[in-house]
Amino acid sequence: MVSSLRLPTLTSLFSPSSFARRSTVTLRRRLHLRPPLAAGFSAQSAASSPTGTEDRVEGKKSSRVQERANTDRVITPRSQDFNAWYLDVIANAELADYGPVRGTMVIRPYGYAIWEAIQDYLNVKFKETGHSNMYFPQFIPYSFIEKEASHVEGFSPELALVTIGGGKELEEKLVVRPTSETIVNHMFTQWIHSYRDLPLMINQWANVTRWEMRTKPFVRTLEFLWQEGHTAHATPEEAEEEALQMIDVYTKFAYEQAAIPVIPGRKSKVETFAGADKTYTIEAMMGDRKALQAGTSHNLGQNFSRAFGTQFTDENGQRQHVWQTSWAISTRFVGGIIMTHGDDTGLMLPPRIAPVQVVIVPIWKKADEKTGVLNAASSVAEILKTAGLKVKLDDTEQRTPGWKFNFWEMKGVPLRIEIGPRDVSSGSVVISRRDIPGKQGKVFGISMEPSILEAYVKDRLDEIQSSLLERAISFRDSNIVDVSSYEELKEVISLGKWARGPWSASDADELRVKEETGATIRCYPFEQPQVVIRASAPKLNVDDVFEQKNEIAKAVKEELEKAMSAYGYEIVQTLIVDIEPDEHVKRAMNEINAAARLRVAAKEKAEAEKILQIKRAEGEAESKYLSGVGIARQRQAIVDGLTLRDSVVGFSVNVPVMDMVLVTHYFDTMKEIGAASKSSAVFIPHGPVAVRDVATQIRDGLLQADSTVATI
Amino acid sequence: MVSSLRLPTLTSLFSPSSFARRSTVTLRRRLHLRPPLAAGFSAQSAASSPTGTEDRVEGKKSSRVQERANTDRVITPRSQDFNAWYLDVIANAELADYGPVRGTMVIRPYGYAIWEAIQDYLNVKFKETGHSNMYFPQFIPYSFIEKEASHVEGFSPELALVTIGGGKELEEKLVVRPTSETIVNHMFTQWIHSYRDLPLMINQWANVTRWEMRTKPFVRTLEFLWQEGHTAHATPEEAEEEALQMIDVYTKFAYEQAAIPVIPGRKSKVETFAGADKTYTIEAMMGDRKALQAGTSHNLGQNFSRAFGTQFTDENGQRQHVWQTSWAISTRFVGGIIMTHGDDTGLMLPPRIAPVQVVIVPIWKKADEKTGVLNAASSVAEILKTAGLKVKLDDTEQRTPGWKFNFWEMKGVPLRIEIGPRDVSSGSVVISRRDIPGKQGKVFGISMEPSILEAYVKDRLDEIQSSLLERAISFRDSNIVDVSSYEELKEVISLGKWARGPWSASDADELRVKEETGATIRCYPFEQPQVVIRASAPKLNVDDVFEQKNEIAKAVKEELEKAMSAYGYEIVQTLIVDIEPDEHVKRAMNEINAAARLRVAAKEKAEAEKILQIKRAEGEAESKYLSGVGIARQRQAIVDGLTLRDSVVGFSVNVPVMDMVLVTHYFDTMKEIGAASKSSAVFIPHGPVAVRDVATQIRDGLLQADSTVATI
Repeated sequence: MVSSLRLPTLTSLFSPSSFARRSTVTLRRRLHLRPPLAAGFSAQSAASSPTGTEDRVEGKKSSRVQERANTDRVITPRSQDFNAWYLDVIANAELADYGPVRGTMVIRPYGYAIWEAIQDYLNVKFKETGHSNMYFPQFIPYSFIEKEASHVEGFSPELALVTIGGGKELEEKLVVRPTSETIVNHMFTQWIHSYRDLPLMINQWANVTRWEMRTKPFVRTLEFLWQEGHTAHATPEEAEEEALQMIDVYTKFAYEQAAIPVIPGRKSKVETFAGADKTYTIEAMMGDRKALQAGTSHNLGQNFSRAFGTQFTDENGQRQHVWQTSWAISTRFVGGIIMTHGDDTGLMLPPRIAPVQVVIVPIWKKADEKTGVLNAASSVAEILKTAGLKVKLDDTEQRTPGWKFNFWEMKGVPLRIEIGPRDVSSGSVVISRRDIPGKQGKVFGISMEPSILEAYVKDRLDEIQSSLLERAISFRDSNIVDVSSYEELKEVISLGKWARGPWSASDADELRVKEETGATIRCYPFEQPQVVIRASAPKLNVDDVFEQKNEIAKAVKEELEKAMSAYGYEIVQTLIVDIEPDEHVKRAMNEINAAARLRVAAKEKAEAEKILQIKRAEGEAESKYLSGVGIARQRQAIVDGLTLRDSVVGFSVNVPVMDMVLVTHYFDTMKEIGAASKSSAVFIPHGPVAVRDVATQIRDGLLQADSTVATI
Repeated sequence: MVSSLRLPTLTSLFSPSSFARRSTVTLRRRLHLRPPLAAGFSAQSAASSPTGTEDRVEGKKSSRVQERANTDRVITPRSQDFNAWYLDVIANAELADYGPVRGTMVIRPYGYAIWEAIQDYLNVKFKETGHSNMYFPQFIPYSFIEKEASHVEGFSPELALVTIGGGKELEEKLVVRPTSETIVNHMFTQWIHSYRDLPLMINQWANVTRWEMRTKPFVRTLEFLWQEGHTAHATPEEAEEEALQMIDVYTKFAYEQAAIPVIPGRKSKVETFAGADKTYTIEAMMGDRKALQAGTSHNLGQNFSRAFGTQFTDENGQRQHVWQTSWAISTRFVGGIIMTHGDDTGLMLPPRIAPVQVVIVPIWKKADEKTGVLNAASSVAEILKTAGLKVKLDDTEQRTPGWKFNFWEMKGVPLRIEIGPRDVSSGSVVISRRDIPGKQGKVFGISMEPSILEAYVKDRLDEIQSSLLERAISFRDSNIVDVSSYEELKEVISLGKWARGPWSASDADELRVKEETGATIRCYPFEQPQVVIRASAPKLNVDDVFEQKNEIAKAVKEELEKAMSAYGYEIVQTLIVDIEPDEHVKRAMNEINAAARLRVAAKEKAEAEKILQIKRAEGEAESKYLSGVGIARQRQAIVDGLTLRDSVVGFSVNVPVMDMVLVTHYFDTMKEIGAASKSSAVFIPHGPVAVRDVATQIRDGLLQADSTVATI
């Protein structure tokens, strides 16, 4: 009997510290340069932003600084101080600036253009998947926030409250939305009446406010921009499907557009959104190996619909609460792009989201060369613009070509085209890649002939896009270590890497691990080792097994689901795959049922093979879908003995042909497999005193095996 | 000597009451149905929104209501109660709903899609005209608002203030942005250093909050969505050009996309934006003849740059304050579209901004007809979608075709295609126009052949677009009356129409007129009677006139500009068009200069003719540009004697060949022309006591003539 379980689980990702909310990243710039709000404002930001201050730099007469590397920009090397580098890049590439109110951010045109590229892609996908845009007010009565218990607990510490309006003290304080589930439900109650009004699927692009104490541009700001999707469904299955669909949309976006190999998975209960049943997430590894939660999709269950009374009349005339989801991606994602791809030189942008994909730098020395070079540069710009590319012709005479090279490299433009007098006479150009520094990335003699040039440039942009993704994948994979004990986990975390290993302990244990090691569970990745539950029922009448195998499979599936759903599992398949009857039954059956058994066995085997084949094909299909990265959701199974014991008792009650012997055999077999397996099943045998309980629970509770077929 | 002055002025538009801010429109729905904030929320809105409540209506068993006109929607006839009609349309067409906080609005998908159409068009135009999108924080330190004197006066009564953040009382209150000039200037000071940083031209799409006391969906809400452009320039001319350019973009959008014949012009000082030197506006006449301020563009001068110290180093190394503009269009425009085109049946949308341009309603009775009809309907939908049209196939079986007809008419969809079994067999469809009710708007037998169908549908959509604009123009024009006295103005206003007449009085007078009649000046339209300043210089040596005519023209232009810029004028052209020398000079000159004079005179005449010709062509070009509507900015001139007297003294000082005789003759001639002219110059001779001063000032101050050439 084989049961395959699907979905996030015990194999978990731990990361040292992260950009999740309320982490403790120190903000060099903020702490050192920003005076408190009450002080003057003029010197608060851009203090070391030379691109915005060209005159001042020029006025300084410090030509030495300017000579150095032919640029007046000084970016802290990424390898030296990642955080300083990040803030330098944001200032010098003019992505954002500090707002006058602590923790707020001004998104400058170059940074906003990246956000627009994110919007343009997602907006189309949202509409394709059946969502409509709309807009909810940002002021929410304080009483709304209090209606959903865990929601108010999660959000009340970080609310901004309007207490005065039109010169008068308000009767009820207004919350500046930190998220919109409450007001959305308030409105849904007015729009949803019958099953025919469902599903209701909407999205809004909006600003939200969370009074964060430790802020960092893009990653965590007091106000940020995002989209928030909100849906209501008639069944829990539909809501779950929607939540998964949207985390898929985000995953695809991250891989294909932003070249960020996020790890999709489910959050632990501790990290689940305040008010959700389940939170799905995409977790990205930044250049400093910190984790960034880049997007989330929540299955809200009926938590908000019960709090707000969002009900519908089903097809049978019964009133029911709707099942809901919400999902969001924010301007934090821009920070993720910077921190995934940047290098010591500055920003490095994936072509598909770059505001400028190609910069053209004309080069001449003598006055008589100028016209020819500029004409050629303009014509090249025109060719590429017509081909649909985002092109910048930098023909200012205030800067040298060398200065421009450095500037646009720092701004992360994927391709640079250089055109000099010699190129004009040979009808060709020089093309340099941002992702391959120096001469290696430079190719001479690319023809200006429109069709050749266009094809060459587009090919290179595609190459850069793939190359950035591959680079990020290999960086990520070389920094994730599989661990099988708590000691190993601690060691890996202390090295600043991510640990992947089994987890099945309590919320309190999770917090204790965090306290001891600084490690948090980023997610239970969708990608899991192949795991199958095996159980034997040796005393069962073989004929009965045949006759009842559908019922048995169904009962097993139902009972396992009850037990495992708490861990986020879904039972994909239950198979009765092989029959080993009791000896005396065997003899009796041999003659009577030989033919029939052979036939059935063949069918079962074929079915099992078929499933394996389909699953393999599905895996391949999903691998392709994720740009050949191979993040396929694999099948998995897991048993928590204690929990399952009850459910199997229930199971045996439901299936009276099985007695308690079955239950015993079941767990004996499970333990045997668990102990003997050469699979990826892992245990944490030696925990420190503080987490010994964790280890014990894991050992007792967790059994994994990568075999695909097992025997009753 | 002829001087043509360009720009808004005295001929003003008065409207009875309006949707400008702080007007006194009563909100039936709000006042009658909405409990105050502190009370419960569930019953606050959509109380009479049957489209969202189909089940409830069906559940009522009140089939009589449903039979009536085959619809369950009840919209108050527009002719009966415009305001009730407006609110009914918004509820039934599911454009918007009330938010839980007083005065807030939820923009529902159908209404938001109209806003998206506005965004899509303007976003492209903004980028074409050199602007970049970015984003500023919405929280502004209260001290910022206080920096610009008239700004704080204008906005402080309607601010929403955040006083608590993260559970703590804030040291400084934060303003939730009502507009962003202050924070924009705070940031501009950090980005602008030299003339090379200018012009700085940005835009943001954002929400803004104004604590309005009397609200109305779309037209005036506590929070609304808009775009706000902000620019900084090195010269006042550039800023003025930018402010005019953007009001042009808005005007073109209104005419060409929204089919709203707005009247572009300049606001009176009283109505000018708090902090601006000049406010340009587009004023639209709604179906109830109320005025709607549909978009504004402000020349901010140096008001904010002086308050915030936004300076740059010019090419000569001097520090100067920048010259700025700001401009905005908001979700109010959606209200303008509803109120311009709607009729008793409901919404009527111009095809270019309609979320659904064509609705397809399949019709069948017998089961065996169904498949054929649905297939044909799907194929027609596919043809039109492929052609780039926004198509909705309404194939639900829960509603009758008649119900669907009414529903989509109420939603304002421009074209409806009906397909029944007979149509399927003849390979044709029936097409109905929303703008022509009943049989007259219905055409049978349009071929389903893709190229024919596509061409036919696109032609009809273009026709509807033009037809809606023409209808709105003729409605507007039939409701604007030219007045030449205060009595006439009062009468016209009392009839609910708009009055167009001269105006040159003080701000206090303007407020007094408003108090007495309820009339406000909507704008000084760009479109003005042709006006020319004429002046004679009889004692001048003719040869000198010839020799110095360029200098004279330049001096006149400069002096007039100084005097007239206060009224928003720009001097377009100064011409020395005819020479009548003093008698004894004449005789002496006759012989000596006969030949030369004839030549020069001919040249001058030709030049004048050329100018007229060019201006005529320009006028025609602009007429075409505004969809043949003929809103051309015409040339105009005006003299305020008292103000001009000073400037002409300056003029004579600058041009020493002219003496004080010139000045005297100048004004004598002006007055003579003013008194004798049969032009459109108008006076208000008999005001009531309270506004007698107004009339006196107008008579003294205002001189208009429509002649194009005059004589020295």
